[in-house]
Amino acid sequence: MTGRNATHDPARRSWVESANAEGTDFPIQNLPYGVYSEGGGPRRVGVAIGEMILNLTAAEAAGLLRPGEPPVFDGGTLNALMALGPDEWSRVRAAVADLLDAKAGPHADLVLLRQDAVRMHLPVYLRGFTDFYASKEHATNVGAMFRDPENALLPNWSHIPIGYNGRASTVVVSGTGIRRPLGQIKGPEDMAPRLAPTARLDLELELGTLVGTPSRMGQPVTVAQAQEMIFGFVLLNDWSARDVQLWEYQPLGPFQAKAFGTTIGPWIVTREALEPTRVPTPDRATPLLPYLREPTDCNYDIDLAIDLAPAGGAARTVSHSNARHLYYAPAQQLAHHAISGCAMETGDLLGSGTISGPTHDSCGSLLELTRNGREPLDLDGVRRGFLEDGDTVRLRGWCEGAVRIGFGTCEGTILPAPAPPV
Amino acid sequence: MTGRNATHDPARRSWVESANAEGTDFPIQNLPYGVYSEGGGPRRVGVAIGEMILNLTAAEAAGLLRPGEPPVFDGGTLNALMALGPDEWSRVRAAVADLLDAKAGPHADLVLLRQDAVRMHLPVYLRGFTDFYASKEHATNVGAMFRDPENALLPNWSHIPIGYNGRASTVVVSGTGIRRPLGQIKGPEDMAPRLAPTARLDLELELGTLVGTPSRMGQPVTVAQAQEMIFGFVLLNDWSARDVQLWEYQPLGPFQAKAFGTTIGPWIVTREALEPTRVPTPDRATPLLPYLREPTDCNYDIDLAIDLAPAGGAARTVSHSNARHLYYAPAQQLAHHAISGCAMETGDLLGSGTISGPTHDSCGSLLELTRNGREPLDLDGVRRGFLEDGDTVRLRGWCEGAVRIGFGTCEGTILPAPAPPV
Repeated sequence: MTGRNATHDPARRSWVESANAEGTDFPIQNLPYGVYSEGGGPRRVGVAIGEMILNLTAAEAAGLLRPGEPPVFDGGTLNALMALGPDEWSRVRAAVADLLDAKAGPHADLVLLRQDAVRMHLPVYLRGFTDFYASKEHATNVGAMFRDPENALLPNWSHIPIGYNGRASTVVVSGTGIRRPLGQIKGPEDMAPRLAPTARLDLELELGTLVGTPSRMGQPVTVAQAQEMIFGFVLLNDWSARDVQLWEYQPLGPFQAKAFGTTIGPWIVTREALEPTRVPTPDRATPLLPYLREPTDCNYDIDLAIDLAPAGGAARTVSHSNARHLYYAPAQQLAHHAISGCAMETGDLLGSGTISGPTHDSCGSLLELTRNGREPLDLDGVRRGFLEDGDTVRLRGWCEGAVRIGFGTCEGTILPAPAPPV
Repeated sequence: MTGRNATHDPARRSWVESANAEGTDFPIQNLPYGVYSEGGGPRRVGVAIGEMILNLTAAEAAGLLRPGEPPVFDGGTLNALMALGPDEWSRVRAAVADLLDAKAGPHADLVLLRQDAVRMHLPVYLRGFTDFYASKEHATNVGAMFRDPENALLPNWSHIPIGYNGRASTVVVSGTGIRRPLGQIKGPEDMAPRLAPTARLDLELELGTLVGTPSRMGQPVTVAQAQEMIFGFVLLNDWSARDVQLWEYQPLGPFQAKAFGTTIGPWIVTREALEPTRVPTPDRATPLLPYLREPTDCNYDIDLAIDLAPAGGAARTVSHSNARHLYYAPAQQLAHHAISGCAMETGDLLGSGTISGPTHDSCGSLLELTRNGREPLDLDGVRRGFLEDGDTVRLRGWCEGAVRIGFGTCEGTILPAPAPPV
């Protein structure tokens, strides 16, 4: 069996042996896209298969993908493919699967490299970055700590996928060091703010949605149209400086507390690969306005985990959540984003907001896991309220269905703050 | 006298006669950059001189600017020039002035077109758009209306150039129609929100700052460095849907209320052209943290006006303000933007926030001018609380010194709302 309908077949196997191994994130049913370079060479588009990467730039140049069409894998990003739309995404995915199918076997024009022998880069030229706040549990937990425990969830939250524009210039790929930011900090007892390195550096466990098909300025889209505009998903860590955030965020929202860095995973898992994992959004007491209603299940059953390793220590899993907890699915976030006529562009990244589950050990930030630092985590004897220099955070994501569809990892290590500008 | 130090000489005259006329925005001392096309042809970079545009793409190709260097005016935007840095900005400006000097005279390779015979485009590929809130009078007026008249200015305002990330994808050039947005609206008496066209469509009179020189992620900059990073300024109208804003803005700030459109003027007045107009920021009761202090005067004495024309009616000037009212100068906004290590990029646009002066007739928004619609403006018998379909808003800006340095106009007309998505 080959072709477009075969890409989810759990019985399908690849001639790349590591893709057939139990527990791999990257079986032939996944085929996530990334951008890599080898030994300082140019950036290539690749697809993960087991422990390997298939060079799609070379495969396309050899006429094995989209023969006779203008190339899309020669620009060092996925943007050209993303702009082609869902029919072409499906065709390319099916063609890549056929190249890697066990029935096909190796081919002289297919270049395979070990993933641990290359350097990964941002897979997309990111046009805009928006961060939502779409987990009810997270919004409730933060509202209780930052505002009022009695009215933790603001009245608009149940009606609007609340979001704000973030900063695209500091979205970096997994493995990039994150420098502890300077910022204005003012404690409740302080007479005036001071400029200092944040003392409450946090992580946020999120799912990032990548927009492929653009929309036009002045033209809203339905949730069904929004779903079709989505190319794929990445793991996303929205690093946050909680002390800076608390002092700056009123009335216009977070700014420098979030601007110093956002890490995304190297692999874009396509929407099509996740089709078998679709689930409905959670029950809601308040009906949504028609423009936000789900025509079909738009959430995804993606297990998520946070591993934290103190400098020199071993990593410990400190949280375990799931993307199905999102109260507003990615397509609902996107439909709301465009409701005013805001033009969405190829390469826009939409963070889901921290995905916290209903239990304490499924919270997606240290703010929640340590109750604002008051109950530090115990990492084999090392205590952590917030992140310290040298700490490494690793996010993981995977779907456990008939086959495992994984996201790989999204990592970052904290670097010391810079000197203040003088 | 020619060369870099001559570009401000008020006695200098051009062989383009309209540039020497009393009251022109575009004498030889200004030389603002823009991008235009003629009869559906390709985009060219040009400079405004009197009623004309000089084609810089052609002048560069003819070897009259930067001979022997890689071209910067062939890409249809100003970004390539902006990335070169202040020394090269000065050299190019001096060379353009010399080409247009009365002592030089016309030249066979200089292509001049009438401004009213071309179409203007966005002058810059905009990377990010950030909107500040840097006028004390505006923040006080809005805080009194949206929150608490007794505590209109929040405690952080006097310490932080408050800002938020906006949406770059809907920044458009003067003359582009602005479609009235749909949005969630909930009045104080309503049980639930509804989706409807905004009934409180507003304008905001702002100055936009364009970043030329980028900064590195993880590396803050001083105010002095920020000043040198600024390429120039544009008029900016940050269209706003006040009813949408009121319902959505807590706790993460404005989102769809501002995402449907932002209009900038077609002409970038360079920082160098405005050097003679530098003034200090207003007196402040609370000292700023050292990283925000002005090493030298960083504000600009730019007169600003809002003209409003109802559909089919004549334009009336409804406000008259000045950029010198900004409590935080553009370079201070930029230094704050980078304090966390946020990377600033060539083509970043920083809106100042609405620039309101101390008097009622110097307010920069209808929200303030009409006291939230309660005191409509009388436009020759037509009453306006907020904007109606067909209304045209025109912003103007100019400096009255030894010579007038003008920004031209920044215009937009309101189009009817689209149908809701179904």
